[in-house]
Amino acid sequence: MRILGIDPGIAIVGFGFIDKHGSKLTPVQYGCIQTEAHTPEEERLLYVYEGITQLIDQYKPDAVAFEKLFFNRNVTTAMSVSQARGVLVLAAVQKGLQVAEYTPMQVKQAIVGYGKAEKRQVQEMVKMYLRLQKIPKPDDVADALAVAICHAHSYTLNSKLNEVLKS
Amino acid sequence: MRILGIDPGIAIVGFGFIDKHGSKLTPVQYGCIQTEAHTPEEERLLYVYEGITQLIDQYKPDAVAFEKLFFNRNVTTAMSVSQARGVLVLAAVQKGLQVAEYTPMQVKQAIVGYGKAEKRQVQEMVKMYLRLQKIPKPDDVADALAVAICHAHSYTLNSKLNEVLKS
Repeated sequence: MRILGIDPGIAIVGFGFIDKHGSKLTPVQYGCIQTEAHTPEEERLLYVYEGITQLIDQYKPDAVAFEKLFFNRNVTTAMSVSQARGVLVLAAVQKGLQVAEYTPMQVKQAIVGYGKAEKRQVQEMVKMYLRLQKIPKPDDVADALAVAICHAHSYTLNSKLNEVLKS
Repeated sequence: MRILGIDPGIAIVGFGFIDKHGSKLTPVQYGCIQTEAHTPEEERLLYVYEGITQLIDQYKPDAVAFEKLFFNRNVTTAMSVSQARGVLVLAAVQKGLQVAEYTPMQVKQAIVGYGKAEKRQVQEMVKMYLRLQKIPKPDDVADALAVAICHAHSYTLNSKLNEVLKS
């Protein structure tokens, strides 16, 4: 199965497609959609939406996983990023994809085995899991791949659980 | 010209189409798009997006005006409503429409002539401007019509200003 991981944003959207064959994970394509700071907000939203739609059409994932947004203080940033998340989720659901969501803690737990792991530790594990030469940059790309790997693990666990329950 | 006013939300999106001929404003269609509380978020976003797209196709506005979102405390609500706003803005920009935005204070100033007017005063003025039998319900619909009227006024003022500057 092919999983698309997304780290939502309005300036930078990280994305990562990975293939899961049994327990083996293979990177397919990853990178980011970037929008210019001085562009009107509505154009940035359109650009993000068209960018992700094009990527979904090209790489045809079976599932999409988002990193859950958390904002403690800056409501303005929260609102801006949430608008982008809205159009990203819309693009996924328009293609009939199931949308999963994981908190940063769930991602860390799945990747490092420790919910309070450092960002750098997560990035090193992403590199290792996908046998990459180096940690993908910017951080948004590594984050997107991390949430895709998290979904792959969670999918495996759920499948095994279903097998146990059926037997 | 025909103006679409929108009061964004995830549970209720208020909309109002009005026609402006000179200084005369005429209501064309108004109401709300409602989504069920227990529906997955991605389906609600799709429903809101498809609903507004269909309305834009049917009533062909020349411009769209949004009420600007303000949240002081509840970041979760802010994020949820912002996602809906994202897909609403996307629908407008995909149809080539200019997106305008007004703060609640700007709307009150334009409609009642006083930026700190009560909600009820704004609603009474909406009813009067559009020669309606009664105040549209729920409040989201009246708010959407109010922001459409605000845009109509602002458009008139800008046109006059441009004439003065050209002469």
